[in-house]
Amino acid sequence: MRLTDYTDYTLRVLMFCARHPERSVTIAELADSHAVSKNHLMKIVNDLARQGLLQTTRGRGGGLRLLKPAADIRIGDVVRQTETDFRLVECFDAKHNACTLSTHCQLKRVFKTALQSFLAELDKVTLADITRRGTPR
Amino acid sequence: MRLTDYTDYTLRVLMFCARHPERSVTIAELADSHAVSKNHLMKIVNDLARQGLLQTTRGRGGGLRLLKPAADIRIGDVVRQTETDFRLVECFDAKHNACTLSTHCQLKRVFKTALQSFLAELDKVTLADITRRGTPR
Repeated sequence: MRLTDYTDYTLRVLMFCARHPERSVTIAELADSHAVSKNHLMKIVNDLARQGLLQTTRGRGGGLRLLKPAADIRIGDVVRQTETDFRLVECFDAKHNACTLSTHCQLKRVFKTALQSFLAELDKVTLADITRRGTPR
Repeated sequence: MRLTDYTDYTLRVLMFCARHPERSVTIAELADSHAVSKNHLMKIVNDLARQGLLQTTRGRGGGLRLLKPAADIRIGDVVRQTETDFRLVECFDAKHNACTLSTHCQLKRVFKTALQSFLAELDKVTLADITRRGTPR
């Protein structure tokens, strides 16, 4: 079971911004810090801006800032936005499902419940919780 | 977020056997029913035999049978065996982790808890629960 690198880097962008609330963060700085291409980060940053999570300012002194307090950003909500393909078993994909057991199978319901439980756990945690320094629980 | 096809097909093999407790099931029959190659199924069946879940008998009249009652096989345990790579974020992979936030980041712990919650949900369900006909909940 894997999440996409896209989710991983999205969370790192948000965490980096949350750690520097006093100033704007640049994409160059994020790219250096995480050894990931600026192009890849641009896509992530644009998506986060579109969701109303990041403010992006162009030009000298510009950069990225969180648009909401880190304590108001739930990790579950971020992951729901970045993970567009929750295909746990074939029958999640109605279009390409070829499973012959589907009509009487309870598996889809079972995995849906498990997925809800996974996301509910992430909903208990905010960006502020995971970026707080020196408070390992 | 995806599970592997390997997990998907493993569950289907177990479900097919659970639906036919009165007789042996053949790999040819499973391959026909699910439009998947015999080679792929052989690997799955061998792994299930090694785990003590399937009995395989060679020759005429041979085939596959469950070695345990379906009610004793938990879906969570099956998925733990088939999903060997629970890499939710990069830092799950100690060998290749290059994330610079790791030392003070709480993300790994958060995803571990969410994963435990996902698997705990699957532990509540047995193979018998998902193969029972005519009892949709």
